[in-house]
Amino acid sequence: MFAVTILGNNSALPMHDRHPTSQVLNLDDQTFLIDCGEGTQVQMNRYKIRRSRITNIFISHLHGDHYFGLFGLLNSLSLTNRTEQLNLFAPAPLESILMDVFRVADTNLSYPLVFHTLKEEGMIWEGSKMTVSCFKVFHRIECWGFLFREKEKLRKVDLEQTKQFQIPSAFFPKLKEGQDYTRPNGEVVKNEWVTRPAPHARSYAYCADTRYEPSLCDIISKVDLVYHESTYLQDQAEKAGMRFHSTAAQAAAIAQQAGVKRLLLGHFSSKYTDLDPFFQEACAVFPASELAIEGTTYIVG
Amino acid sequence: MFAVTILGNNSALPMHDRHPTSQVLNLDDQTFLIDCGEGTQVQMNRYKIRRSRITNIFISHLHGDHYFGLFGLLNSLSLTNRTEQLNLFAPAPLESILMDVFRVADTNLSYPLVFHTLKEEGMIWEGSKMTVSCFKVFHRIECWGFLFREKEKLRKVDLEQTKQFQIPSAFFPKLKEGQDYTRPNGEVVKNEWVTRPAPHARSYAYCADTRYEPSLCDIISKVDLVYHESTYLQDQAEKAGMRFHSTAAQAAAIAQQAGVKRLLLGHFSSKYTDLDPFFQEACAVFPASELAIEGTTYIVG
Repeated sequence: MFAVTILGNNSALPMHDRHPTSQVLNLDDQTFLIDCGEGTQVQMNRYKIRRSRITNIFISHLHGDHYFGLFGLLNSLSLTNRTEQLNLFAPAPLESILMDVFRVADTNLSYPLVFHTLKEEGMIWEGSKMTVSCFKVFHRIECWGFLFREKEKLRKVDLEQTKQFQIPSAFFPKLKEGQDYTRPNGEVVKNEWVTRPAPHARSYAYCADTRYEPSLCDIISKVDLVYHESTYLQDQAEKAGMRFHSTAAQAAAIAQQAGVKRLLLGHFSSKYTDLDPFFQEACAVFPASELAIEGTTYIVG
Repeated sequence: MFAVTILGNNSALPMHDRHPTSQVLNLDDQTFLIDCGEGTQVQMNRYKIRRSRITNIFISHLHGDHYFGLFGLLNSLSLTNRTEQLNLFAPAPLESILMDVFRVADTNLSYPLVFHTLKEEGMIWEGSKMTVSCFKVFHRIECWGFLFREKEKLRKVDLEQTKQFQIPSAFFPKLKEGQDYTRPNGEVVKNEWVTRPAPHARSYAYCADTRYEPSLCDIISKVDLVYHESTYLQDQAEKAGMRFHSTAAQAAAIAQQAGVKRLLLGHFSSKYTDLDPFFQEACAVFPASELAIEGTTYIVG
């Protein structure tokens, strides 16, 4: 399964039982945390997310509603005797703040916390099944988006057909890579006769906090699911621009121009109690829009 | 009204729907916050505490479960355009951590935040009705308790009696201070004939995180209500000592020796789901013991 679970969908401060930004991305047995607003560890308890499973944490920027929950989470992982390495990807200044917080508490974490400074756009993490890249978004301070992309998969071998063409199983790895097979008599068996296309490599883009910025469309082009902030409704477009935030319609326009499959809207201003207008305004521009609702899991792909 | 409301009664990390330490002290229209674990602002929403009313915040020590909620709270006060000065009393290293957190977010608070470093025992704040003193408690790192003491009040003038003795109202302020009145003919009217004793000046002591330490008894002697941590039950007394924490029975022994009126127990370890044994063990030593329950308000005096 490749899916994202929303832990917080509110901007700035907790209100209306909505919480500041945090999301959990799962790919099979791997758990990635994206941003970590205050109360994230409590939200994890509420939605039965096992914090011990987290291997990598990505912090988009250093506005508090995106990382004030990190202090408590890192601390709790130590209090519950985690030993596995934890990778933290974040803007540079966070490292010394964390070190200070642990130093004054005389805390030695029970696990290795490896800090990876976000410096330039490109791949920042690679696993067996997925890569993570970061890209710049356009906010009031240094701010990063993250692109989670499954690696290209191998073609599927059709066992029935390989039998018919008498292809030895030792050659299957090459078939999976798309190679043709040449029989001992020189006859060529075309790859597509004995394999099926590789499954689609799925992708999720997290656009963090950003003003409306069409140049993002290239980066997130054709992803399966994009999260784009929509702090305001369209009648507040001017305020959105001034504050380096977006409206629901602007998020939808980005999704539309980037040719993505689905759009997830979040980071709603506390001034709104009713979120339905966000859904309406976005769908008018890009019908495959959804609201990021806390506790809800959205399948990628 | 002089009362304390519990926002968090758990130690170390949020668990069992209990939250890290935070308390609100109210004296008439003044609101004081004592410690500020993660989620304090959410607990304030839950229990209808108006955060705009807070004038002074006291942080006992820099273990995260006592201050990780401060970042979000201070930020939210700014986002909601507070303009009144806010006083923060805390160990020295917190100041630069806070400054760093606001600097990297490019945040200019909307209100003056005045940092008061806790340096030595004694009075740290004085208002028209109350003084606040800090005192050292015995924890793994620098840690402070706080004593909130109403100022001595004036005697009450008995109007009926003053009429009878023909005392002019201009002399009432001196009567309130306890002076006798000398009539024009030289006759002395004893103060106690025309006044009633001053109401009791109430007091609350917050002992933060501390190991069992009888020397605290002098400082908190005879207060109306003392909060003393009780992280563990008595069968964990050895662990409690090693970790600079106390058991319920130890907290009760302090209350007993200090001759206080009532004891409030809190900072319960997450290993306990049932808190009743804390109550039982404390009451066996000091019957006027109570559990600090979140959302509950305890009258001082």
